[in-house]
Amino acid sequence: MVIPDIATRVWNHTFKLDPIVRSLLDTDFYKLLMLQMIWGEYRDRQVTFSLINRTKRVRLADEIDEEELRAQLDFARTLRIQKREMIWLAGNTFYGRRQIFNPDFLNWFSEFQLPDYDLHRVDGQFELHFHGPWTHTTMWEIPALSIINELRSRAALKKYGRFELDVLYARAKSRLWQKVERLRELPDLKISDFGSRRRHSFLWQRWCVEALKEGLGSAFIGTSNVLMAMEADLEAIGTNAHELPMVMAALSDTDEQLRSAPYRVLQDWQRYYGGNLLVVLPDAYGTSEFLRDAPDWVANWRGFRPDSAPPIEGGEAILDWWKAKGRDPREKLLIFSDAMDIDSIEETHRHFAGRVQMSFGWGTNLTNDFRGLSTHPTVDLSPISLVCKVTSVDGRPAVKLSDNPAKATGEPEDIERYRRVFGHAQYEAREAVV
Amino acid sequence: MVIPDIATRVWNHTFKLDPIVRSLLDTDFYKLLMLQMIWGEYRDRQVTFSLINRTKRVRLADEIDEEELRAQLDFARTLRIQKREMIWLAGNTFYGRRQIFNPDFLNWFSEFQLPDYDLHRVDGQFELHFHGPWTHTTMWEIPALSIINELRSRAALKKYGRFELDVLYARAKSRLWQKVERLRELPDLKISDFGSRRRHSFLWQRWCVEALKEGLGSAFIGTSNVLMAMEADLEAIGTNAHELPMVMAALSDTDEQLRSAPYRVLQDWQRYYGGNLLVVLPDAYGTSEFLRDAPDWVANWRGFRPDSAPPIEGGEAILDWWKAKGRDPREKLLIFSDAMDIDSIEETHRHFAGRVQMSFGWGTNLTNDFRGLSTHPTVDLSPISLVCKVTSVDGRPAVKLSDNPAKATGEPEDIERYRRVFGHAQYEAREAVV
Repeated sequence: MVIPDIATRVWNHTFKLDPIVRSLLDTDFYKLLMLQMIWGEYRDRQVTFSLINRTKRVRLADEIDEEELRAQLDFARTLRIQKREMIWLAGNTFYGRRQIFNPDFLNWFSEFQLPDYDLHRVDGQFELHFHGPWTHTTMWEIPALSIINELRSRAALKKYGRFELDVLYARAKSRLWQKVERLRELPDLKISDFGSRRRHSFLWQRWCVEALKEGLGSAFIGTSNVLMAMEADLEAIGTNAHELPMVMAALSDTDEQLRSAPYRVLQDWQRYYGGNLLVVLPDAYGTSEFLRDAPDWVANWRGFRPDSAPPIEGGEAILDWWKAKGRDPREKLLIFSDAMDIDSIEETHRHFAGRVQMSFGWGTNLTNDFRGLSTHPTVDLSPISLVCKVTSVDGRPAVKLSDNPAKATGEPEDIERYRRVFGHAQYEAREAVV
Repeated sequence: MVIPDIATRVWNHTFKLDPIVRSLLDTDFYKLLMLQMIWGEYRDRQVTFSLINRTKRVRLADEIDEEELRAQLDFARTLRIQKREMIWLAGNTFYGRRQIFNPDFLNWFSEFQLPDYDLHRVDGQFELHFHGPWTHTTMWEIPALSIINELRSRAALKKYGRFELDVLYARAKSRLWQKVERLRELPDLKISDFGSRRRHSFLWQRWCVEALKEGLGSAFIGTSNVLMAMEADLEAIGTNAHELPMVMAALSDTDEQLRSAPYRVLQDWQRYYGGNLLVVLPDAYGTSEFLRDAPDWVANWRGFRPDSAPPIEGGEAILDWWKAKGRDPREKLLIFSDAMDIDSIEETHRHFAGRVQMSFGWGTNLTNDFRGLSTHPTVDLSPISLVCKVTSVDGRPAVKLSDNPAKATGEPEDIERYRRVFGHAQYEAREAVV
């Protein structure tokens, strides 16, 4: 006889809110690394992050109930770091290093609370901004995105019957395992989960992470999600993001300062971190422009994360640059993380095998690949291209160019100025699907 | 927080046996219909049922632990009909008729217990016989088969990891739902579950039944499994089986009696049942031979269940016969139940649409289609062709010829005599895969 737990059942049927983000550690590890540096160097900077939905055809504010969104965002604001989480952050080894977080920083972080948000509906979309100190607004990026993406899933799934739901997840599990079986064939693969922000749901990301842990063994090197790394005893993976050069650039008064911003931020970074954390994200204002002007010491870093160039062309450009700088690429690392999926992982892995060290950050196509799986005829579960980006710094506009013109952010006149200073993006626009 | 039920967990980790058959109603409905007639007419006949594994390459006694098999068979012998089960049998409507079971019969059945069994290992196979009164041995057929089939699944799945198991069932669910989506396209489909005996497991059959209930709606007309019909409030489906003509034939002293056995058993049947339960199973000694010699009154019956001829040829032969007897096939019913799966269902449905009423009994390929789905490289989960047949009656040998020579049972010299009396099977041997 199955004896249901009565309290659980009553709770299920009377509950007020099923929170999407239940821990401040349910975020990407690089946010914490960056936060320590921001707190150390730029704690007085006022930085606005804003939601940007690149998939315009999806009218988010029609799909998602505004009150539900507010309830989730409000719940996330009630979170504080838990004692056991703090102990783990202080005591765990990250990237082979103990005490990567300074006790003063952790002490400050123990009181951390997400700041207020600014939400309006405009023409079927949400205008969502986070204003305040960079140390606070930066921490909204991942929870805001994962909340909106999961609310979107939940809204769609309300139309499903019990077995339609069961079969939907059965199909998604089958699809993921097919990818696992293909990934197992790649020798010396190193791959990690980068899928927190665009995940179908928290529980689904957790299933994916656990499945990769069992299915790929040591080829699965960890997850960007700090909470899941803690709970599943995996490595927390991540280094730094575009917000660093974007803030540096926005704070620049002269063209000369602007041009040097991407390198100055690396100098900041290497005062805080070393070893495998010295990974360059070169594409904020164009990878070829970055390489053209990069000082020699950048070639001492451990590797690059090409994030918006086509992986093979982007990777080759970096290999050429290392060689030109007299470095052996076989001692260097490339981390591929832009919209990767099984085909592009296989192709890239095959292409660079033996020529450079590689790892893959697998995001949306790991944790939200429900395309075509819907068992309900009117429901489309394809992911959308949703980001949360720096839009202003101390009242100045922020700009990103990227290697893919479709991923540029900022006002047209500001983009124009940046293009004049850095040069033009070399790659053709590719639709930002995820 | 997930609060596990502590008692459940301790129970799970200390339990002695996970019984496969937990109710005497976990059997096929036709066994109860036949049992009432056997009890009424033939209660003193001693009939032996025996396990026959037609898939010789599978060495059952190497795959399944004999002690586990004994423990399951012993557990099944402890079962008695439950009070609520008895009330349901007495109070439910079957095939549109109230009180289909006589109170005296139910009173007798309320004390029913499965008889002893005779089990030996011989050359990697199990010799499993059930000796005793027909009223008792007949009831072993379905539990014996479902126990052995599920023990085989369990043995195979012991090699699986946690996520391999999860993905295995995910794949099976995806596959079944694909079939559901195709079946939905067939107009006026009528289909039922006939998969108890060869099911992968009890829980999987139940999932399949519930999924068809939600996925097919009224096209899913019910299940042969009495317990599942009761629990899911579905129609219990089934009429009669080969054991009836086989016992009648074995009891025949002269060739003339032997030749008339298949019709005498129908005369018995129609004293007990009417309406949609008047379904002829014509193939025990060859369908064409049956039709050739059948008295006119057989054409008054509601329909036929061709069970070993190829469905289209077998069905056409029956349509021709009805027409020759001056009956309109559009008022008659064909029930297709031999190794049907989505392709043959579609083909048969298309072929006969508008020409005859049809329904499909979907067995092994519904409840045990794990072919090629294994996530574990060394495990094959394909079903096998396992039956439990009458082998002797009051000490005389029992024989089945069937339309498919591969499905004949009995000693060679006895088969020879039956072939001489009835004629030769008209169809070519087709491997009995399931």
